Amino acid sequence: MSHELFERHREVLEQAVAATRSREYFSAYNESPSPRVYGESAAAEGKQAFEALAGTTFPLTTPGADGTVATEKSPFGFTLDVSYPRVTESGVDELVTAAGAGLKAFRDAGPHARVGVCLEILHRLHGRVFELANAVQHTSGQAFVMAFQAGGAHALDRALESVAYAHEEMTRVPRTAVWEKPAKGEPLRMEKTFTPVPRGLALVVGCNTFPTWNSWPGLFASLACGNPVIVKPHPGAVLPLAITVQTAQQVLAEQGFDPNLVTLAAEDPADGLAKTLALRPEVRLIDFTGSNAFGDWLVENARQATVFAEKAGVNTVVVDSTDSFKGLTMNLAFSFALYTGQMCTAPQNIYLPGDGIETDDGHKSFAEVAAGIEAALGKLLGDDARAVELLGGVVNEGVLSRLADAPSQGEVLVASREVRHPAYDDAVVRTPALIGLDAKDADVYESECFGPVAYLIRTTGTAESIDLFRSTVIAHGAITASVYSTSSEVVESMRDAALDAGVALSENLTGQVFVNQSAAFSDFHGTGANPAANASFTDAAFVANRFRVIQSRRHV
Amino acid sequence: MSHELFERHREVLEQAVAATRSREYFSAYNESPSPRVYGESAAAEGKQAFEALAGTTFPLTTPGADGTVATEKSPFGFTLDVSYPRVTESGVDELVTAAGAGLKAFRDAGPHARVGVCLEILHRLHGRVFELANAVQHTSGQAFVMAFQAGGAHALDRALESVAYAHEEMTRVPRTAVWEKPAKGEPLRMEKTFTPVPRGLALVVGCNTFPTWNSWPGLFASLACGNPVIVKPHPGAVLPLAITVQTAQQVLAEQGFDPNLVTLAAEDPADGLAKTLALRPEVRLIDFTGSNAFGDWLVENARQATVFAEKAGVNTVVVDSTDSFKGLTMNLAFSFALYTGQMCTAPQNIYLPGDGIETDDGHKSFAEVAAGIEAALGKLLGDDARAVELLGGVVNEGVLSRLADAPSQGEVLVASREVRHPAYDDAVVRTPALIGLDAKDADVYESECFGPVAYLIRTTGTAESIDLFRSTVIAHGAITASVYSTSSEVVESMRDAALDAGVALSENLTGQVFVNQSAAFSDFHGTGANPAANASFTDAAFVANRFRVIQSRRHV
Repeated sequence: MSHELFERHREVLEQAVAATRSREYFSAYNESPSPRVYGESAAAEGKQAFEALAGTTFPLTTPGADGTVATEKSPFGFTLDVSYPRVTESGVDELVTAAGAGLKAFRDAGPHARVGVCLEILHRLHGRVFELANAVQHTSGQAFVMAFQAGGAHALDRALESVAYAHEEMTRVPRTAVWEKPAKGEPLRMEKTFTPVPRGLALVVGCNTFPTWNSWPGLFASLACGNPVIVKPHPGAVLPLAITVQTAQQVLAEQGFDPNLVTLAAEDPADGLAKTLALRPEVRLIDFTGSNAFGDWLVENARQATVFAEKAGVNTVVVDSTDSFKGLTMNLAFSFALYTGQMCTAPQNIYLPGDGIETDDGHKSFAEVAAGIEAALGKLLGDDARAVELLGGVVNEGVLSRLADAPSQGEVLVASREVRHPAYDDAVVRTPALIGLDAKDADVYESECFGPVAYLIRTTGTAESIDLFRSTVIAHGAITASVYSTSSEVVESMRDAALDAGVALSENLTGQVFVNQSAAFSDFHGTGANPAANASFTDAAFVANRFRVIQSRRHV
Repeated sequence: MSHELFERHREVLEQAVAATRSREYFSAYNESPSPRVYGESAAAEGKQAFEALAGTTFPLTTPGADGTVATEKSPFGFTLDVSYPRVTESGVDELVTAAGAGLKAFRDAGPHARVGVCLEILHRLHGRVFELANAVQHTSGQAFVMAFQAGGAHALDRALESVAYAHEEMTRVPRTAVWEKPAKGEPLRMEKTFTPVPRGLALVVGCNTFPTWNSWPGLFASLACGNPVIVKPHPGAVLPLAITVQTAQQVLAEQGFDPNLVTLAAEDPADGLAKTLALRPEVRLIDFTGSNAFGDWLVENARQATVFAEKAGVNTVVVDSTDSFKGLTMNLAFSFALYTGQMCTAPQNIYLPGDGIETDDGHKSFAEVAAGIEAALGKLLGDDARAVELLGGVVNEGVLSRLADAPSQGEVLVASREVRHPAYDDAVVRTPALIGLDAKDADVYESECFGPVAYLIRTTGTAESIDLFRSTVIAHGAITASVYSTSSEVVESMRDAALDAGVALSENLTGQVFVNQSAAFSDFHGTGANPAANASFTDAAFVANRFRVIQSRRHV
């Protein structure tokens, strides 16, 4: 078995493995869409490739598919009009059989061949990064630069990270070993062979907001470990994953593997295909990002599978004091505004003492903090042309409807406004709302209000803020948490609460790092230690269960 | 936090970690009970310590316990008459609260302190290895030397192996890292802290036959990762785990930790305590060895926990041909006889072509192979005094009843006989039965007949034997498999089938290694890839889910 692809990408893999261990900065894919990095024509060619798909059927075959389906609408105001092979319940038998057909040859090729295939797929996806950025922009509603970064370069880094983990896990046990036990007379001597084998079929259920960033880690971890992957995209964000599957199939076929090791199962939203697929006995691994309801359903019902689920949570900020009031308000405002708050990492619950906080700019009352955030939002979003590049578009009606309800839940400290997109007349763009609540309004702030709504919650002081943080996250989960304080005791107390609540903590972010962001190879995304997610991008637990080691032994 | 214990045991830990990676021979605890190894008085002192317990209440306090319970009877014919604090449903609240009380301090002590505690506990258990051997002998029915080895030295090795994995998993991410991202102007620079935190409470449900070997890997993996462990022993084998808990509590208390981080929850067999404990929301990890019925119940019902379950399976031997007929028959006979076949690794289904096999001693018909096994059993077990040291005692009535039923299931090729123990008049000792079946008797051989019953199954040839092996193990699971063949094609074909079935394969064992045995640090016990077990002793997947990493980050 040739390991040519593995050797070709070995250096980047080794750098990636080293970075997962040092947790220092590393990136294999440049996040700047600048022509100086990617060449003068790359951006235009990527856009053209995206636009050429309108009105076509995406060139991809899915076993068991019957007809096509076109379900995507850009939050910037147009339908994508791209059709995909449609899978319904009646085609699932054929799909599952076809998906499994290539398992054995892929298994027998060994970890290096599989990891080489994954690395080559990532390399080719990187070659299509502008096309992907357009696809992510016009399905998720992310502004272009964010789509390029979060949906392209950073997603590739997170995928590479999971391949690096898979490689390390599969190869930590040697291929063969000689075991020699001292014994009376001759020692007992045996040769042993160790083979990593896949668990079975893997199912990836994509989400609308981060179709690549959230799907690729599971997809590539499963594939590297030898599990055929059926990708069930969100009907609102099919294209980024169709490009992914197409690229994967090309590389697989070139290497002599069955291209159906990676398949796309697009559906009509009414079909409920994810449930059907998730209950198939052949499916042993499921990666899901989305609602609590479906994540919990998967864990309750797909008992034959190991489920990796990222669901909803209530991301929290405890504000105690700061040595940079301007930095605090700008940083929070940016975090609320980025992609219209439609991030699983966006802060929602901001606990603030009712009698205000001490800052470098003097004491600030509750109202003055709110006013500071409003001013910062104004700076960031005052100009429509600049605002849309930060906000992007509203991904779906649910977000709009929650935003419309927000004023009724408390005091409107900052109102949301409609923004007119200079390039897309029908784009749906909104700025964030900031709603004032009291600590007693737990019924409001204890559930996720996904979208551009943040709550400024009045507490009796930082001690209560930290208690509420701890208890709310233990009960309802969170992907992120942050604290602002000049007191080392308060920061220590928050660290302790974050360990109790099982959530990652950012401290005093007043510069150009935002709580929403997690950097591949260094930051763990989600912890698996609170109800918002039962897994993390990426740790050993995310990968170690995707394969098993089978040994054989014989005397020598 | 002092890491004195860690430093004291660092060398053995490092050797253990290296062995898990090389899979070469390693043992930290001498398996020979010889006075030359352990000193002249060790055996007598251990026996005395065991005997002194008769008629006493074991000196151990369990929060929430009410009164005591004495449930153990030696398969060698006497009641142990040792009482333990009894936990019933009404005491579970108090037990769970007490178990969790020390979690935070133990978590905050960090991985090195916790690993040091675990290594010291193992060191002290090794100091009590003769006492443990007596306790294992007179609960499981293992003969003394086996109890010393499998219940003592080898169990300690398997426990050390899981501590080594836990250590490596927890420390693969650094305690702190500095992340520096190039940016316009100043680079972005952050310090990050990574803390492994436990999942919650751990429950270990012990079994009657291997109270230490099967319980310690999960117990120590959970404890090293910071999870308080409630040990629910099998009512028939409490003492080995009571000694374990007592030793753990002593070390914990000496180190200033809450001794209730490890507790013993003994019960009356009618109490069904394991179910009550398993459903507690605080319990996030469960290790279980035992029946399919309860293992499946745990997976179905204890949904809040990660369940590591070793259940039943049908261990298989495919006999195609051999270059040592004598070696084959002696090896198989030994595997059937060892501890009366009461091992989850003992072979049960022996597939043999109906028209016999080629051997170094000429062609052997089906009947001649059976006769060869009978002769080998006769050699091994013909002398009662020697036989009892191999067979040990029958662990419970269920084994006797299955043995009594066996003759009705097929042709009795070798009959079981009662053996009189020279030292214990009331010991219940039996030799194995070999029952002839046809390939069509799937209803008999497709379920586990735990105990001294093996089936010699007539097939149309090795191709059918391998097909039956593959399909039966995929459907019903197995912990072990083995093949005898002089044909490299047949061995290759079995290796392939073993990968498909997800079971470890032993090839042509004709000497002093037996399919029943798995060596810590080198052989994986169970694979997690077939229905007999969803986990393995010990791989990364056995440990990686027992903790989560929580990070904090700040600008520097």
